[in-house]
Amino acid sequence: MEHSFIAWAKQRASKLPRVKLGIGDDCALLSCCPADRNDQSSPDESGPCDDWVVTTDSLCDGTHFILADCGPKRAGRKLMAVNLSDLASMAAKPVAVFLSLCLPRKSAGDVAAQVFEGVYELAKEFQVSIAGGDTNVWDGPLVLHLTAIGQCPIDKAWKRSTAQIDDAVYVSGSLGGSILGHHLDFTPRLKLAEKLAALDIVSAATDISDGLGVDLLNITAASRCGAELDLDSIPINESARTLSATSGKEPVMHAIGDGEDFELLFTVPQDKIASVPSELDGIPLTRIGKIVSRTGLWAKDKRGVRQLPPNGYVHGS
Amino acid sequence: MEHSFIAWAKQRASKLPRVKLGIGDDCALLSCCPADRNDQSSPDESGPCDDWVVTTDSLCDGTHFILADCGPKRAGRKLMAVNLSDLASMAAKPVAVFLSLCLPRKSAGDVAAQVFEGVYELAKEFQVSIAGGDTNVWDGPLVLHLTAIGQCPIDKAWKRSTAQIDDAVYVSGSLGGSILGHHLDFTPRLKLAEKLAALDIVSAATDISDGLGVDLLNITAASRCGAELDLDSIPINESARTLSATSGKEPVMHAIGDGEDFELLFTVPQDKIASVPSELDGIPLTRIGKIVSRTGLWAKDKRGVRQLPPNGYVHGS
Repeated sequence: MEHSFIAWAKQRASKLPRVKLGIGDDCALLSCCPADRNDQSSPDESGPCDDWVVTTDSLCDGTHFILADCGPKRAGRKLMAVNLSDLASMAAKPVAVFLSLCLPRKSAGDVAAQVFEGVYELAKEFQVSIAGGDTNVWDGPLVLHLTAIGQCPIDKAWKRSTAQIDDAVYVSGSLGGSILGHHLDFTPRLKLAEKLAALDIVSAATDISDGLGVDLLNITAASRCGAELDLDSIPINESARTLSATSGKEPVMHAIGDGEDFELLFTVPQDKIASVPSELDGIPLTRIGKIVSRTGLWAKDKRGVRQLPPNGYVHGS
Repeated sequence: MEHSFIAWAKQRASKLPRVKLGIGDDCALLSCCPADRNDQSSPDESGPCDDWVVTTDSLCDGTHFILADCGPKRAGRKLMAVNLSDLASMAAKPVAVFLSLCLPRKSAGDVAAQVFEGVYELAKEFQVSIAGGDTNVWDGPLVLHLTAIGQCPIDKAWKRSTAQIDDAVYVSGSLGGSILGHHLDFTPRLKLAEKLAALDIVSAATDISDGLGVDLLNITAASRCGAELDLDSIPINESARTLSATSGKEPVMHAIGDGEDFELLFTVPQDKIASVPSELDGIPLTRIGKIVSRTGLWAKDKRGVRQLPPNGYVHGS
């Protein structure tokens, strides 16, 4: 449902000059000032103002977390981490977050305080201000909502739509099996993104929230191209191997299909590949494929090239 | 619960220089640029950048609207109107909104499209961009969430905390009985706020969401003062009189206690009272009391002055 709704909403939503990028990427981009003002700034002054980068995500009890299992603090921490991951995926530095809670009537005050503590843990770590919010008590399950606002030097935010044919595809960390705990306790890749942005080598980026297959397709669809994954090179998390023992799926299928890894997925032009370090901020960066002209997602291994469904299901493997 | 949680969260939330006003008002205020940059701008250039004004509000089925009664489009319109009313209460001009939906599994796509249409109706009217969002399908009832971002000339946003003793208290429109329909179909007072801001007479402001009594106390608590209401001057909506016929409460009690009027409540210094028009943008502005040094809420009528509970219950009336 989401993809068709987003496409429809994007077409319906009026575009205003101040909104540089609207529905359809990890975050929206707002220009701080009217365009003519930034044009007036001469380079020897302070230069044009930074762009504002905005993202919003909700988490629902029973869907994105199980409150009875993880407790309110971990749920709150995940809420913050998911939104900060979106800012990282566009190379933005977080400034402020806005927290909105729909609290179950029973022990609403205690749940609110614990959720806040979870949000606060990452706010403190990344020096983000919790600048506002809204609390509601209701008869439904816990729903958490957060909007995160960051900044990025003008026109420097990474987008999904700017990958070029022959760019190499990279991923940070390792993938798969996030459901075993990583999805609650991961660290958003803000520091990695900051260091990567300083290298000025990224042509397009997103974070892995729905799974490598789906998120890579988000980049290729926005960039009007395709991608070919080298299956043997995909870095597989130990949790994917653990799950594989009982799921009946190859570990690589978990790595492609599972989602909620919240790693960075990015592309690098051929002439900048030599500048990509093998690790940055202590996190491995792995080349896993390339952008191709043929649309869709393709898998390459020793048996050849074939189309790959977004969930990573490899026929006959 | 909300007031004590907000006070606690406010004290916990780290304050960053870029956040000019955090938890505790209708919206937060973010300064666009680092302070030293705005200081450098000479007045003959384009001047300092506008402040950004951010607000966030959730509406839950069964609490803020009854989906079976009003349908998804009216619920979506209310969501947008409630947030735009917060921007109006700080004299901000809306720029972009971010919509996040938790959709009941049954007919999720249809509900999402209708909610969007309701949001879009006001987005079009007030030229606001729907710039991003998030959709989730879950097993709970419909939860709607919106974050609205606006702008305001630097240091010109109205706040709750800046009322002074002897300021007159004004309200726009008429109050009470919103539950009969106004809470779903009201027009946020953006145009009125814009015209009022141009007069430069407002010392403090909020919008009436929780009821005149509670919202006036929000101003007096933030401004460390009290307020005295002239009960006979409060403009009473016809719906308050309709409700009064069966509720056993005086119409004025509905006007003070009901909430969701989404009118502007503002204060004006004595020396600017002569500049307050009796109506603006076709909406009556009524003087209903004054700010006093004695903290709390006080009622004045022909029988004298006495303390008034926030719900407007007048003993012996």
